[in-house]
Amino acid sequence: MQKEITIKSSKRDELIDISNEIYSVLKESQVKEGICFLYVPHATAAIIINENYDPNICDDFTDALKKLIPQGIWRHDSIDSNADSHIKAAICGPSESIPIKEGKLQLGTWQSPMLTEFDGPRSRKLIIKIIGD
Amino acid sequence: MQKEITIKSSKRDELIDISNEIYSVLKESQVKEGICFLYVPHATAAIIINENYDPNICDDFTDALKKLIPQGIWRHDSIDSNADSHIKAAICGPSESIPIKEGKLQLGTWQSPMLTEFDGPRSRKLIIKIIGD
Amino acid sequence: MQKEITIKSSKRDELIDISNEIYSVLKESQVKEGICFLYVPHATAAIIINENYDPNICDDFTDALKKLIPQGIWRHDSIDSNADSHIKAAICGPSESIPIKEGKLQLGTWQSPMLTEFDGPRSRKLIIKIIGD
Repeated sequence: MQKEITIKSSKRDELIDISNEIYSVLKESQVKEGICFLYVPHATAAIIINENYDPNICDDFTDALKKLIPQGIWRHDSIDSNADSHIKAAICGPSESIPIKEGKLQLGTWQSPMLTEFDGPRSRKLIIKIIGD
Repeated sequence: MQKEITIKSSKRDELIDISNEIYSVLKESQVKEGICFLYVPHATAAIIINENYDPNICDDFTDALKKLIPQGIWRHDSIDSNADSHIKAAICGPSESIPIKEGKLQLGTWQSPMLTEFDGPRSRKLIIKIIGD
Repeated sequence: MQKEITIKSSKRDELIDISNEIYSVLKESQVKEGICFLYVPHATAAIIINENYDPNICDDFTDALKKLIPQGIWRHDSIDSNADSHIKAAICGPSESIPIKEGKLQLGTWQSPMLTEFDGPRSRKLIIKIIGD
């Protein structure tokens, strides 16, 4: 079973917790054991699994990547000012997979899947695939 | 088929080769063709596939990440001194998948799956899922 | 269905678009809905999903990693001068998965799967697994 939903970002760099969206698709699927596969079909966004309790860690994460991959110093920036967004997205990757057990995602207590926006604000497509064992 | 095992780390930053643990689950599963999916349900640990011959490369890896994401300079460090551990774990990611062929992991000669500890020493849960074709 | 193909790189650091190779395996498989799983069994290469329109972004990507993980400063370099290649490969990871819908990869307009060479020129094995729903 597969669903495509839309997630809206509001800043250039932003982490958006997508747990609720995924859980509603998981419930609809009625799958109890399997894998939840997440994919963003965008070259300036990514999916990560990140700490979900302290919102500061989300800003720390986007700040860390800004320091490592600064904006405006790349060849591609002569065409479009988002080379840094592409590089960050390629490093983080467009997908994550999470095991499903007894109808629940086997996330750790502090883990949440997050859509990672590197060139917002934009409207992003998120593909959620629930695969039963 | 799915198993959950415990891996103990002994340092703050450490790579632990988990090939033997995975092979024992793979044998038990009797799956010959498929995918081995690994997942750590922790926000300060990760799974990577890394060079397995020279132990120095493991220290090189953890050193490289320490240089890129230093400890103690992040917002989250005012609550808990492990912001760097969360950022490193989110970049590396909590999972990897390895193809299975003729009952063996299709790893390269120098590749091993490794649990990556970024906030040890701790006891970590590793989820191993063997999915037949 | 699984195929193993060979990809040749021509430089030490290089991104090689592998979309055509994957599409030819996908067509042969006749799978319409599922997941395409890619894996490189090498400790100095990786798979990423990256921007596919401006070739400059590929050089920007390899340059960014060279700046972050310089060559020649690591313990492992006393044995073999490719510690940086191993570290970069472990961070990027040896695999990616792409959803398949109506017989097509659900890549974004600007996304292509790319084999990432960090220690070329070499001949690399690419494992392509097409898994139907």
